[in-house]
Amino acid sequence: MAGNSFGTLFRITTWGESHGKGVGVVIDGCPPQIPLDESVIQTMINRRKPGASVATTARREPDQVVIMSGVFAGMTTGTPIMIMTTNKDVDSKTYEAHAELFRPGHGDITYLAKYGIRDWRGGGRASARETVARVAAGAVAKAFLDKHSIHIVSYTIELGGISAKARDLNSIDRNMFRCPDMNAAEAMKKRVIDVKKKGDSVGGVVEVLAKGVPPGLGEPVFDKIDADLAKALMSIGAVKGVEIGAGFKAAGKLGSENNDAITPQGFLSNHAGGILAGISNGDDIVVRVAVKPIPSIAIEQDTVDTSKRPATISTKGRHDVSAIPRINVVCEAMVGLVLADHMLRQKAIQEDK
Amino acid sequence: MAGNSFGTLFRITTWGESHGKGVGVVIDGCPPQIPLDESVIQTMINRRKPGASVATTARREPDQVVIMSGVFAGMTTGTPIMIMTTNKDVDSKTYEAHAELFRPGHGDITYLAKYGIRDWRGGGRASARETVARVAAGAVAKAFLDKHSIHIVSYTIELGGISAKARDLNSIDRNMFRCPDMNAAEAMKKRVIDVKKKGDSVGGVVEVLAKGVPPGLGEPVFDKIDADLAKALMSIGAVKGVEIGAGFKAAGKLGSENNDAITPQGFLSNHAGGILAGISNGDDIVVRVAVKPIPSIAIEQDTVDTSKRPATISTKGRHDVSAIPRINVVCEAMVGLVLADHMLRQKAIQEDK
Amino acid sequence: MAGNSFGTLFRITTWGESHGKGVGVVIDGCPPQIPLDESVIQTMINRRKPGASVATTARREPDQVVIMSGVFAGMTTGTPIMIMTTNKDVDSKTYEAHAELFRPGHGDITYLAKYGIRDWRGGGRASARETVARVAAGAVAKAFLDKHSIHIVSYTIELGGISAKARDLNSIDRNMFRCPDMNAAEAMKKRVIDVKKKGDSVGGVVEVLAKGVPPGLGEPVFDKIDADLAKALMSIGAVKGVEIGAGFKAAGKLGSENNDAITPQGFLSNHAGGILAGISNGDDIVVRVAVKPIPSIAIEQDTVDTSKRPATISTKGRHDVSAIPRINVVCEAMVGLVLADHMLRQKAIQEDK
Amino acid sequence: MAGNSFGTLFRITTWGESHGKGVGVVIDGCPPQIPLDESVIQTMINRRKPGASVATTARREPDQVVIMSGVFAGMTTGTPIMIMTTNKDVDSKTYEAHAELFRPGHGDITYLAKYGIRDWRGGGRASARETVARVAAGAVAKAFLDKHSIHIVSYTIELGGISAKARDLNSIDRNMFRCPDMNAAEAMKKRVIDVKKKGDSVGGVVEVLAKGVPPGLGEPVFDKIDADLAKALMSIGAVKGVEIGAGFKAAGKLGSENNDAITPQGFLSNHAGGILAGISNGDDIVVRVAVKPIPSIAIEQDTVDTSKRPATISTKGRHDVSAIPRINVVCEAMVGLVLADHMLRQKAIQEDK
Repeated sequence: MAGNSFGTLFRITTWGESHGKGVGVVIDGCPPQIPLDESVIQTMINRRKPGASVATTARREPDQVVIMSGVFAGMTTGTPIMIMTTNKDVDSKTYEAHAELFRPGHGDITYLAKYGIRDWRGGGRASARETVARVAAGAVAKAFLDKHSIHIVSYTIELGGISAKARDLNSIDRNMFRCPDMNAAEAMKKRVIDVKKKGDSVGGVVEVLAKGVPPGLGEPVFDKIDADLAKALMSIGAVKGVEIGAGFKAAGKLGSENNDAITPQGFLSNHAGGILAGISNGDDIVVRVAVKPIPSIAIEQDTVDTSKRPATISTKGRHDVSAIPRINVVCEAMVGLVLADHMLRQKAIQEDK
Repeated sequence: MAGNSFGTLFRITTWGESHGKGVGVVIDGCPPQIPLDESVIQTMINRRKPGASVATTARREPDQVVIMSGVFAGMTTGTPIMIMTTNKDVDSKTYEAHAELFRPGHGDITYLAKYGIRDWRGGGRASARETVARVAAGAVAKAFLDKHSIHIVSYTIELGGISAKARDLNSIDRNMFRCPDMNAAEAMKKRVIDVKKKGDSVGGVVEVLAKGVPPGLGEPVFDKIDADLAKALMSIGAVKGVEIGAGFKAAGKLGSENNDAITPQGFLSNHAGGILAGISNGDDIVVRVAVKPIPSIAIEQDTVDTSKRPATISTKGRHDVSAIPRINVVCEAMVGLVLADHMLRQKAIQEDK
Repeated sequence: MAGNSFGTLFRITTWGESHGKGVGVVIDGCPPQIPLDESVIQTMINRRKPGASVATTARREPDQVVIMSGVFAGMTTGTPIMIMTTNKDVDSKTYEAHAELFRPGHGDITYLAKYGIRDWRGGGRASARETVARVAAGAVAKAFLDKHSIHIVSYTIELGGISAKARDLNSIDRNMFRCPDMNAAEAMKKRVIDVKKKGDSVGGVVEVLAKGVPPGLGEPVFDKIDADLAKALMSIGAVKGVEIGAGFKAAGKLGSENNDAITPQGFLSNHAGGILAGISNGDDIVVRVAVKPIPSIAIEQDTVDTSKRPATISTKGRHDVSAIPRINVVCEAMVGLVLADHMLRQKAIQEDK
Repeated sequence: MAGNSFGTLFRITTWGESHGKGVGVVIDGCPPQIPLDESVIQTMINRRKPGASVATTARREPDQVVIMSGVFAGMTTGTPIMIMTTNKDVDSKTYEAHAELFRPGHGDITYLAKYGIRDWRGGGRASARETVARVAAGAVAKAFLDKHSIHIVSYTIELGGISAKARDLNSIDRNMFRCPDMNAAEAMKKRVIDVKKKGDSVGGVVEVLAKGVPPGLGEPVFDKIDADLAKALMSIGAVKGVEIGAGFKAAGKLGSENNDAITPQGFLSNHAGGILAGISNGDDIVVRVAVKPIPSIAIEQDTVDTSKRPATISTKGRHDVSAIPRINVVCEAMVGLVLADHMLRQKAIQEDK
């Protein structure tokens, strides 16, 4: 089974290359009678648009989404929803020079090893442009989750080595990095401008918070909700690590510290990140992802060409300094898709109330 | 779809509860004509046995595995391989006292929320005993990978806050924690004995290394090999984080530091952990998992009973101080299952050589 | 993906060979809190037992089923239910003579072509013994369907060229062929005895009727309920055709004859067999399957050995004259599995009532 | 899992409604480096076009297909191939009158029962227009099968009660019904013209023949190749029966008649239809499907409206008299998809040659 589908009951299949005719997604399994129109999707898509912060590329795709099927009279019908956007601002010229070179840190070398052929224009299928389809699908998932009062938010807690100290969720829409700490956001900005001048790039850490998730979601022993979240998030380009709740810090704790005591009013702490034995426990779900620095940099690097001859490369194309903050909405989308899927999976086995 | 199957082409389905009649696995999709007998599986199973280190429980299951189907004349036949072990040393009495209590950090509360019923004996399906089935399947995966010269090893790089400084793979079979640093292993031992006396528990970090993986494994954009590894490992009880290559450290690096330069002789570094754009690049695959401390501790903790009345609990059953080192072989098994599956998936689309 | 699993949400995986250690099934996705014990399963298993009619083999397997997991205190728990029976009355000797010969009409030649190895003892995985696992799973599906007042019955409408004229469901438990026409049953008996004497075998047609199926089951456009029924039934060894409602007769009708007129009281006829556009319409679901004659016959036939040298073969093993009536309960089980699966699939997307 | 995907390794997902913005398909898992362009697909699409015979509707869709992704420099790249066509000749007016009526024999009543909402324009998702996507995908499957010298042909062997006596494959492109018997074709034409005058419709039987299929395809015990063919074909609207080889006739035969004797030169007959124990045996695969008469007829029929009040309906829209011959190419496409999928599945487990 090729790997361009995700989810079991709320299932998406994405298609499209960076410099092809367009990118899109088929959502199969979205319940009927969910209110949906293009504006709901466009709003979320716009959040991942290039050009929104000092960290992002100058490419300006209108990214106008169209719902091609599955919606009638403003409501989902239960049939497949296809959403697409055509590629308009395509400039493959800067890539032509690199058609025969493998860019370090990119999938050029592995795509060729795997398929024996590759669409080198703009990164082809391995481009971040692929995430437009994820976000479009995530917007539909969120429309469904809204009906069940589940809300998801993502924010940047580390960028270029600078960490957020605070978790002030009101701040995240007030700075260009979606950082819940305005002071840290200011330092991040300086850092990014500095790195940009040097032609280099930075990584960071994004946290995703899901509120209102009912207890009981997750399908042990393999499709645990944390396992599915880990897959969903690790499948995003640039993500190199995923942790739940206390995450890697839990490894250094004692059991007596890490356990969340239970009271009639709920859990006294949330080191579990809202998940016990792979099933949601009703508390907030908290996930963090490590985002590597963008591999395309202006600084010259050693590489080889497709004939394995040594070469150097310096990427002059339009590229972001960091996948953050554009990646945040993608993380949010992927968490939304996992939750929507597990809502349906749990509904299937649960007695009607 | 219930969640007790894993893999696409090399696919396993596990069954069984801690104090039920047994645990086992059906492996469907193992290629025919792989040499296999019970001793191969038993050897790997024995590595996760209780009683092997100061960190582990006194429960001594013989864990005698039987191949029930799919093998004829010492070879796999291409039909489903069912491997099982019956439960012998079952003592549910220590659990009876807790039948009405939710153990903090355990799945008691979430299993009941999800299913409305739970087998409370020994943790039921949420017991670590479930991993016997994973390891049996992993042994079959490794028999297949052996034919393709792919080898996987796991080892402990952190336990109870003590980190291995060295990566001496020759040491890992020479100490009870499978630590690649004999000095660290000694310190870990003291730490574990100390914690055990206090009735507490510790977590740690396990690293898994896969050597000989050919380039080209992984199915973008969702079934990337890192995404599938993340799911596989996060699905193991007690795991709260997964990272690939530089992992969370990549978040703090510059692009110029994190990129692995390419030369005609190969990559100059391996921050990518052997994976680019979700496809193996031919280098070693390196994955790390964060293991939380065992939640069952002798120290008294606050909880509630199934009627939500406040209570306290102190676990007196036979429990490990740490899931490490028993969990190591489970991690190895899960990595083996992912690689075997992706070997077949890649073979399906590749031209014969 | 190997092919030993069936179903999406109510999903089974079977294992086992005719002369191996046993046969069994893992049922994953059965909702929790369904009353279940071994007697429920045993009753259905006993209906497919050899030795029950003049048409069936003398092999007498006790076929004692054991529930190994997934049931606690007489109720399903939502975790995988493994049911198995060990093989006791195994006599591979009559097969040894044929280890090097391909039996016409059997899978000997294709199993070897596919896997390059085959377990020739008693037909291996291709034996009708494999259906024990289907029936065990079907019994669990029926326990679930019972809760929703859905009932399934199968009966023989043709055997050895003799057709039932009546559809008297009260008769089916009163004759050895499960024929709803006592006169036809009598003729069938004579026919079978006659054919048996000649060392030959006969085929027939089985009809399965499902009552109480609510409208709305089926997932267009590929997992339509008729499509899934067709697959389920065609996957049974010996089945060569499947038809729904009017079936092949519909091909010869006019639209004005074949359409089922709709009235406020329901449909005026049921040529559709209870299914419109792949979705159940609330009427009885009616399916028929064509069962080929048992290929193992005492009459000498031309064949080749595994080295492609000409040979003759005459099967002296214990074999049935017809797969009917033993196959009837297998058909019933497969229909039950499809309905249980689609009940859950529909529940997942439907508003709670 | 919603039902708009088909196949395991060569996997398609279709979308689109009759009177929506378009219809299309994502093909995920097509091997890389298969030559492909739009003309290959268009040629096959044109074969299902309306207006090609006296039996078909006057609606004239240009059905211009566009490949949106997955093809680069005339070759498949291994990434998802999205093919679509936009709907141009849409006239929903004739349907508006029936928006509140259930057409007998159609899915109007079941779609509403299932989803609680339906797109009534032109049949919505349940329209035969959905099959454009199947045929586009089938064209890609056939491009892949061509590389392996597997060829598939479909033809009409019964229409309006008139049966083909001959199987002259050279005739099928020489008459409008794709009948392998020119005399029968002539009689069919008269029959269709006659029925058309009366405002009625007819059904028939289509046979599909696959040549060059290697032995070894099919995955027992559930994903047998005959089981997957049965599902594939039964999932086509209007199909009410599927049979393999001798099919329902096998039910009336003796074992000694029905078995295909084996010789060093191959099988002496092909009652098995090229499949033994669910695995291809190297002989021609032969499948037949029963096609019901088109339910939309000009003759007045009894029905109810969405408020269950009695009504009558007479369909005046543009409709075919028979799904044949347009359905033939759809059958061919579905068989192609099953074979392509099983080629890959077998390749995954087979030793390289």
